[in-house]
Amino acid sequence: MNSHVVPVIGSEAVLAAVSPALAIERTREAFERHARGEWVMPAKVYLDAPPDGDFRAMPARGGRLALLKWVTSFPHNREHGLPVVSGALLLSSAETGELLAVLEGASVTSLRTGAAAAVSAQLLAREDAASVGVIGCGENGGWAARCLLAAGYGPGFCADLDEARAAALAEELGWEVGSRELAAGQDVVVTVTPGEHPVLFAADVREGQHVAVLGADAAGKSEVEASALPKFRVFCDEWGQASGGGELAGPVGRGELSREQLTQIGDVLIGAAAGRSSEAEATLFDSTGLAIQDLGIAAAVYEAWQAGQVPATEAPL
Amino acid sequence: MNSHVVPVIGSEAVLAAVSPALAIERTREAFERHARGEWVMPAKVYLDAPPDGDFRAMPARGGRLALLKWVTSFPHNREHGLPVVSGALLLSSAETGELLAVLEGASVTSLRTGAAAAVSAQLLAREDAASVGVIGCGENGGWAARCLLAAGYGPGFCADLDEARAAALAEELGWEVGSRELAAGQDVVVTVTPGEHPVLFAADVREGQHVAVLGADAAGKSEVEASALPKFRVFCDEWGQASGGGELAGPVGRGELSREQLTQIGDVLIGAAAGRSSEAEATLFDSTGLAIQDLGIAAAVYEAWQAGQVPATEAPL
Repeated sequence: MNSHVVPVIGSEAVLAAVSPALAIERTREAFERHARGEWVMPAKVYLDAPPDGDFRAMPARGGRLALLKWVTSFPHNREHGLPVVSGALLLSSAETGELLAVLEGASVTSLRTGAAAAVSAQLLAREDAASVGVIGCGENGGWAARCLLAAGYGPGFCADLDEARAAALAEELGWEVGSRELAAGQDVVVTVTPGEHPVLFAADVREGQHVAVLGADAAGKSEVEASALPKFRVFCDEWGQASGGGELAGPVGRGELSREQLTQIGDVLIGAAAGRSSEAEATLFDSTGLAIQDLGIAAAVYEAWQAGQVPATEAPL
Repeated sequence: MNSHVVPVIGSEAVLAAVSPALAIERTREAFERHARGEWVMPAKVYLDAPPDGDFRAMPARGGRLALLKWVTSFPHNREHGLPVVSGALLLSSAETGELLAVLEGASVTSLRTGAAAAVSAQLLAREDAASVGVIGCGENGGWAARCLLAAGYGPGFCADLDEARAAALAEELGWEVGSRELAAGQDVVVTVTPGEHPVLFAADVREGQHVAVLGADAAGKSEVEASALPKFRVFCDEWGQASGGGELAGPVGRGELSREQLTQIGDVLIGAAAGRSSEAEATLFDSTGLAIQDLGIAAAVYEAWQAGQVPATEAPL
């Protein structure tokens, strides 16, 4: 039986390897390569784990690499002091199949999720957009804020039902704690909640605003009130995932949003589709999270390990 | 970011943790629990890696555990001294999502594939079946032979285009090297080849014989000549996988084999379907390889690690 030594790269090393600025660069590149058909991914597979959670298996291939992410969503875990999102990534050579590395999953997920919010703002927010509202200040909300800061946005308001969590993020960034209403009124708003109840309402929507909806990630979940959606021009990461599960699954299923009304962000990045059409238009980006984004981050982590920039535990696999 | 220490269990430890006898027991249990609906698995996902290979993402849940196997098939790797099958398994708690262990993939694959051949022989071969023919003596062929030996079968003949490989296996087991024809004439025959050309022909089939077809694992591959198939009563591991890819995909697609003519081995194990109907009947088991089998083996490895019976590298993940 063949066996070789593989680096196992933990969350601290992942976060040390990839700064918010690098995460943004790699995430944008992943969207572009996917839009050009160079990076590919089959649909993600859900494995239900009743009563409280599910697992997702997310494969992708591109740039001589193949990736599999195995990641959970157990929304009620936080009540028990356990992480909502956990898992790992397996990075392989797409040329030989050889396993190259094992990476911690939640850290990669946070980086690519946060970076997607920043990429969407750089692409779709108004030129003069500056202030940020973060609704939901958990792991992924924190990284969305860090990535927006790295992209030049801010200062902003951090809102969370858990005020201590909002305060910790605000202090780290030099921003302020604010109410949901206050956060929802800023130039760039990110929502990163479990999606069990709406946190953005029709009355919140401002002309010219950009909203990145990152939280709702499975069928039946939604962070934006249904009546608010028609106020936005709507963008997504990938039509299939966005229409199949998460924020937009309901509106698409009810016929309120058609394929033609939903623009993939990668198509805008490569110039194949139009972005914001006017200063007054409000834009909404629904992130469901793509395996090709994980691949972009994982490749950057692996390169940093190869360059000796971050430590790993070497294990025979 | 939460981080905890996870055991990374290499191939030597996997093979030390699970004997062929234990692999057979856990594989049989996996087939039974799956047939009863207690263990579940979504369809495996293929990720093509042109020109030479593919990756498969295989999730399963059962017994409070959730598993994801990420495994390759790069058939031409052997020409370059690289493993055809490689990958890893991620084992998680189905109750909290917590990642429990990372396991080497080829060793688990070999154990569950070889064990499936033995389970099929115990269930479907004639009571007086003894002699074995192994056609294809690579990693998985070797483990099929070891599992058949552990189940009380043998002695047998080992056939391989690479005679040195056949000789090494024969010597290990106290069996003999034989031609393909000789191996194909034994009471229990296992074929474990890449499936690019048939290795079992209509003229080979004997009354009362049991054949386990383990090799062909993707659409367009086949180890059994099409005209030989009507001579057998045909069993499979899972209708969806068996009809979708591998040995039986062609005959099912051409309407030569219907759902009613194809019996799932788990249904026979739990008494929900009939097995061999006469001493004269020839039986064929097509193994496509199920994630629930991997789950059965992975659970046994994890239990052995928990009991301190095998070593692991502990890594923060």
